[in-house]
Amino acid sequence: MKLIVDLMGADLGSEEVINGVCDSLEKTKLNFILVGPEEVARQIIKLRQLDFNRFEFINTTEFIENHDDPVRSLRRKKNASLVLGLEKLNEEGDGFLSAGSTGALLAGGIFITKRLEKVKRATLATLIPTQSGSQTILVDSGAVVDTKSEMQDQFAVMGSVVAEKYLQIKNPKVYLVNIGSEEGKGDIRTKEVYELLKNNPNINFCGNIEPRDFLTGKADVIVADGFAGNMMIKSTEGAASVLFSEIKTAVTSSIISKIGALLLKKSLKNIKDKYDYKKVGAGVLLGLNKPLFKAHGSSDREAIKYAIYKAEELLSSNINKTIEERL
Amino acid sequence: MKLIVDLMGADLGSEEVINGVCDSLEKTKLNFILVGPEEVARQIIKLRQLDFNRFEFINTTEFIENHDDPVRSLRRKKNASLVLGLEKLNEEGDGFLSAGSTGALLAGGIFITKRLEKVKRATLATLIPTQSGSQTILVDSGAVVDTKSEMQDQFAVMGSVVAEKYLQIKNPKVYLVNIGSEEGKGDIRTKEVYELLKNNPNINFCGNIEPRDFLTGKADVIVADGFAGNMMIKSTEGAASVLFSEIKTAVTSSIISKIGALLLKKSLKNIKDKYDYKKVGAGVLLGLNKPLFKAHGSSDREAIKYAIYKAEELLSSNINKTIEERL
Repeated sequence: MKLIVDLMGADLGSEEVINGVCDSLEKTKLNFILVGPEEVARQIIKLRQLDFNRFEFINTTEFIENHDDPVRSLRRKKNASLVLGLEKLNEEGDGFLSAGSTGALLAGGIFITKRLEKVKRATLATLIPTQSGSQTILVDSGAVVDTKSEMQDQFAVMGSVVAEKYLQIKNPKVYLVNIGSEEGKGDIRTKEVYELLKNNPNINFCGNIEPRDFLTGKADVIVADGFAGNMMIKSTEGAASVLFSEIKTAVTSSIISKIGALLLKKSLKNIKDKYDYKKVGAGVLLGLNKPLFKAHGSSDREAIKYAIYKAEELLSSNINKTIEERL
Repeated sequence: MKLIVDLMGADLGSEEVINGVCDSLEKTKLNFILVGPEEVARQIIKLRQLDFNRFEFINTTEFIENHDDPVRSLRRKKNASLVLGLEKLNEEGDGFLSAGSTGALLAGGIFITKRLEKVKRATLATLIPTQSGSQTILVDSGAVVDTKSEMQDQFAVMGSVVAEKYLQIKNPKVYLVNIGSEEGKGDIRTKEVYELLKNNPNINFCGNIEPRDFLTGKADVIVADGFAGNMMIKSTEGAASVLFSEIKTAVTSSIISKIGALLLKKSLKNIKDKYDYKKVGAGVLLGLNKPLFKAHGSSDREAIKYAIYKAEELLSSNINKTIEERL
């Protein structure tokens, strides 16, 4: 199997991505098509004495930046790594991995890779680390807003398949995000989605979940409109960031606190790491003709390597076939 | 001025509420109509040797519970403290304070107190403590879902007035919650609301705010559909609760951590207290013929006293007149 990797647009630069790919080589059976600065890639591979037979190259240094308008850029930046990579994916290869602009990847997925026939809307499944140590799959996490309820019903199925194939969870527990846990709560759309999920035989629907339980690990799959899903992620990030910053301020307020903080430093760092979703592999854009993997923009080589391993698991499982059967 | 106080439905019981009212007496000019167990109230007032001229009583022990269906209960529980209190408010008194069921208070506001003529929908304004030490007013925080954009436009005006009159902020900064900070982001409704807010001369609209900034104090007023607003509150609560629980686990993992935790205990407690929105006074149900104040269910006498002080400020400012002028 072949993974196409976008070398451009990552916060830490192309070399970090290339090194991540190289690091993965020993334990993956995947071959790679690298889209980006070919000479740089070749040099690193040569330096590391790796097997050139496992690599192909598409040379470019153009890419779609975070502040670019994604849809317009697809048309204008003909040589952007994303455009070249996704066009290549239409010819060959099994998946595409990028740490570049999320918006551009979504737009590229919709307009270049295109949807599976039965799929009403592609969805970005994000892996959320939880307190229990497990991961929760959030569909959708911000790619699709103004969802029709039928779309969210499909998100539930696609998220369930990913939970099975990616996280090896049997009969994954699917919940719908809502502002109350009882049936009948929420706005009109959420009530409609509830009815659809309740009557969907292809998922294990367990009811509403409040955002309070987002991080507890109660759910294997959380279904949401992209607006609500993104609100939840960003509220959680905000709360965590404010709390850590308050702790930092508090512990420098007295000598006693400072000593306490010193003794606790490692524990606090561990907590931060545990919830760092940048470290739990890539998000997956689901419902397209081939899956696209989104590594976090700030991924280091370690994160890229891990994202490649997860991508390989998913690609090996023939996820699209299962999705089509269950929709 | 006269405040009607619901003595029923608070988690800590009627006596705690009565004592809160009594504690407030020294510093408030308000008189009170207490709705609940009259004998209990009289005994406490007598014991504390307070002036009976400042109290009237409506005797009842019935109330609408959290698990009751709010709308149906309004009709069925004729002697519920909320029903008797709000009916009294239609005759006399300037506002109503309750620590009972939020749903029942909302329903009572809509069906008994009724909306101001120009108001399309009442909204629950909640005071959110922030990192900067200021407070942010969230409208709506969960009372109204499926809002039309015109409703959110009105929420912005009402929230602004409260920020001025309640928090003494001149020209309060109004933001719209969105999943991106740039203009043009979000779902259809949010884009519509953005246009209305941008063109509303009666507010100081400053653009979109991401949920990441919910707790930073950047905004004086945050406008949201009740679904989104409630999502934000509950995600934030969830993140904080998980983090504190993780810290608790982490600090008991080694003796060194335990010592560290001991030294930090006070600092961590201070942080928890700072963000305890139960302690920042009552929420206000706005847009009704008279304002209804919602103290948190778990309010202790201190919280009740503080809620009364804040209610007095708002009542003195003739907030409804200002709202009607600006809508």
